[in-house]
Amino acid sequence: MKTELEQVLPAQIEKRSFEIITEELGERVFVPGTEPIVKRCIHTSADFDYAENLVFSEKVVEKALGALRRGASIVTDTQMAKAGINKKKLAQYGGQVYCFMSDEDVAEAARENGTTRAAASMEKAARMFQRNHGQADTADRPLNCQEVPGDETPGLIFAIGNAPTALIRLYELVREGRLAPELIIGVPVGFVNVVQSKEIILELKDTPYIVARGRKGGSNIAACICNALLYMM
Amino acid sequence: MKTELEQVLPAQIEKRSFEIITEELGERVFVPGTEPIVKRCIHTSADFDYAENLVFSEKVVEKALGALRRGASIVTDTQMAKAGINKKKLAQYGGQVYCFMSDEDVAEAARENGTTRAAASMEKAARMFQRNHGQADTADRPLNCQEVPGDETPGLIFAIGNAPTALIRLYELVREGRLAPELIIGVPVGFVNVVQSKEIILELKDTPYIVARGRKGGSNIAACICNALLYMM
Repeated sequence: MKTELEQVLPAQIEKRSFEIITEELGERVFVPGTEPIVKRCIHTSADFDYAENLVFSEKVVEKALGALRRGASIVTDTQMAKAGINKKKLAQYGGQVYCFMSDEDVAEAARENGTTRAAASMEKAARMFQRNHGQADTADRPLNCQEVPGDETPGLIFAIGNAPTALIRLYELVREGRLAPELIIGVPVGFVNVVQSKEIILELKDTPYIVARGRKGGSNIAACICNALLYMM
Repeated sequence: MKTELEQVLPAQIEKRSFEIITEELGERVFVPGTEPIVKRCIHTSADFDYAENLVFSEKVVEKALGALRRGASIVTDTQMAKAGINKKKLAQYGGQVYCFMSDEDVAEAARENGTTRAAASMEKAARMFQRNHGQADTADRPLNCQEVPGDETPGLIFAIGNAPTALIRLYELVREGRLAPELIIGVPVGFVNVVQSKEIILELKDTPYIVARGRKGGSNIAACICNALLYMM
């Protein structure tokens, strides 16, 4: 082997990576609390564009950590993001990860309505978890979607890493009052309606968001933002 | 909604994305056969760096498709890549996807040997599938790792999207003659030994490879290269 390897103990690899990222970011000033998220996105992608393109709504980290602490669950639009989220850590607080993309009823609804499975999977989330203030409309587990004063029912975080159509449908469901997410992680990737789908999320007034503006994002970025939050707890 | 959406039918979104990518790539000339792989990596990441950083060994696409056709299986270093690979399509030819990262014996071996779980998971692959010319050393399913003339036993493709330590161990196992992969997809991402781990793969003389030089890559890229190959069949 002609190539010189850096000698780093297994347990130190992530630490060393973050040191390199910190060095290369230089004197950058972050929105308070957001630094671990920005750095983990760079760690996941080796792409320093994430130092520029991430947008955070006011006090979003504080709000997201509060939601996770109350047992919020995560709904995502890909099995890859579901695989990447640290489910053990999430479960410590009572949350779990849902992805409805492979569900037969979602595929059927998409066919019937001429929409994408991603959009139909957001519909399914709304059906299962709509704001119900204690009234269960699912046999499994009643879930409110945003903190109501005095209400300790856990809420929902949406982590959208692939499909702009999921993000657009989510925007509509929020506007229609059918969902009130604790947090929207809006990081779909691609070329058709991706930029637009993220811009409309920034229009939402009362919904905390973390959005990667522009074309970039992905399931890996969606999962890593969830994990960055979990590792801050 | 103030933002103007492009009207594209669900079934047309991917096609339209690839048209945009093709437009933006302009007059670029690709190594024959590699164009769908490069474009799918850009599609997955919205990162045109993949037009520059992907390196292909000679006739790698032809060889990889041959391996898949003979029922090659895929070993990967993350559950995310496993989740992202089109397992239904792979199964049509007889292959399946393995990821040993969460296996208890892998965690144990890593602890014992002071290595990473990723490196230990490559060891496990070598133990399970080492070149055996028809002699099963696993009760489940004997697998050769590279085509032997007249030998139709399916082989192995390694798709490494996260851990440089996996790629380095894989390199060593090939050099030691314990594995002879049909293809190494070498696209770990990150900052510690990532660049080096990919450069050493380029030194392998008889192993077909697809490598993303530099720091970039990821589970999403590993999965999408597998899928690009599968969609070419």
